[in-house]
Amino acid sequence: MQGESEVVVLRLGHRPGRDDRMTTHIGLTARALGADRALLVGDASQSETTVRDITTRFGGPFDVEVVDSYRDIIRDWAGTVVHLTMYGERVQDVEEDIRAAHAEGPVLVVVGAEKVPFEVYDYADFNVGVTNQPHSEVAALSVFLDRLFEGRELEREWEDAEREVIPMETGKRVEEVE
Amino acid sequence: MQGESEVVVLRLGHRPGRDDRMTTHIGLTARALGADRALLVGDASQSETTVRDITTRFGGPFDVEVVDSYRDIIRDWAGTVVHLTMYGERVQDVEEDIRAAHAEGPVLVVVGAEKVPFEVYDYADFNVGVTNQPHSEVAALSVFLDRLFEGRELEREWEDAEREVIPMETGKRVEEVE
Repeated sequence: MQGESEVVVLRLGHRPGRDDRMTTHIGLTARALGADRALLVGDASQSETTVRDITTRFGGPFDVEVVDSYRDIIRDWAGTVVHLTMYGERVQDVEEDIRAAHAEGPVLVVVGAEKVPFEVYDYADFNVGVTNQPHSEVAALSVFLDRLFEGRELEREWEDAEREVIPMETGKRVEEVE
Repeated sequence: MQGESEVVVLRLGHRPGRDDRMTTHIGLTARALGADRALLVGDASQSETTVRDITTRFGGPFDVEVVDSYRDIIRDWAGTVVHLTMYGERVQDVEEDIRAAHAEGPVLVVVGAEKVPFEVYDYADFNVGVTNQPHSEVAALSVFLDRLFEGRELEREWEDAEREVIPMETGKRVEEVE
């Protein structure tokens, strides 16, 4: 988010067709919940287009990009690498250390699909489980970001939006932004 | 969760094929993050089977069921109905009221797919936006549950599990439960 060290979400293991919606949801969740960028590894141009389109309509700043390979990104990351996995340490045990690391520099949040190569566990500074139960990489990412930012992401401002949703008790209200 | 008023997740608008994975992720997220039951409206038997299978292997109590229609469930709910929607009130503004309601009785959390009929907005006691941005119903559900339970769901005990994941700094460790 603006005024903080960068947070980038790296999506591994995208399988075209099968994973399109999950990868799109990861990109949109990264944007909505305070990350600055999403990097989608592999043939994920459909998800990239959707996330870019939502950013044009509902605002940013947020960047999304398709990349060929994850290895150099993780290896060369000048900051902290967090890998979300059900096998990792409990988020409630490590979140404070990760927040301290984020106060010092950028954080790369790695989100895998089914099988994540062992080297990712090895390169990560933190392997983190949002529960040690099988559920959803989208769920893990969203709880992680909400805890990383301690709710600040819910108050962020959106720039250059074409439209804005006005919170309502009942019904739907969308306004054009001047 | 055990010792608390029941929390049930109701998934609306499932489209077989297209929504199978999202609905499965909703069911698994409900289970992992402290809900007691998931009700899947429509032809979602594939998701039901997966969630049931995970519960057998990794423990419960958690119940999942396919239902024909949502209307009576929402209308007759003896407790609080929360509908998660990007058009709703900001979660940070209403979560305290919802926690107070949950201290008094059961909570039904309604999670839609694309188009949710207007009557759902009308029947809900709270229409709640986890951000007023388009992202993911799985993300909205998971942040909502984590805030509803204030992290208690991460400490819950699992009963009758066949296997258990042991949190690790690096690597994967799964143990058979005696």
